[in-house]
Amino acid sequence: MRRLYFHRDSERGVKGTYDWLAEELEELKEALEGKDKEATEKEFADVIAWLASLANITGINLEKAAIDKYNGKCPKCHQSPCQCTF
Amino acid sequence: MRRLYFHRDSERGVKGTYDWLAEELEELKEALEGKDKEATEKEFADVIAWLASLANITGINLEKAAIDKYNGKCPKCHQSPCQCTF
Repeated sequence: MRRLYFHRDSERGVKGTYDWLAEELEELKEALEGKDKEATEKEFADVIAWLASLANITGINLEKAAIDKYNGKCPKCHQSPCQCTF
Repeated sequence: MRRLYFHRDSERGVKGTYDWLAEELEELKEALEGKDKEATEKEFADVIAWLASLANITGINLEKAAIDKYNGKCPKCHQSPCQCTF
C-alpha cells in the first residue's frame, strides 16, 4: 500500500484520508446490509486499504500496532479466548 | 482475532459489531487530532481488531479480500505506483 499510494496519500493529508476511510466504512455498512458476499469482500478490502494509507502518512506501522496490542491475548483480561465480563 | 473473540463477536452480531467499529473509528479521529503517537497506534490496533471481528462473523477472510483486490497494483489503473488521474 505504501509503494502504491504513498505519494497520493501524502498530498491528500491526514484529514482528507480519514474522510475517505469514513466514507468507505459507510459503503461497507451498505454492502453488509445487501448480502452480496463478493461486494462485501471488496468493501472490506477498501476499508483496510484506506486504513493502511492513513497509517502510512502518520508514520505508523499498522501490522506492528495490531501485534503490539493484540499479541494472541486479550489486552484487557490477558486471556485467550477473551474472558472479559463487560 | 478469530480465536480470541469469535464467540463474543458472534453473540453481538453484525450490526452491533459494526457499531463498535464505527465508534473505534471516531476514537482514532480524536487520537489523530491529539498528536500522541502511542495513543494513535493503539486506536489503529483497535480499528483493525474490530474490522477483523466483523470480517470473522460475516465469514470473510480479511487478508484474502485485501490481496484479491490490491495485489501489488492499483485496481483502477493497474499500475504501481498508482497513476490514476482522479
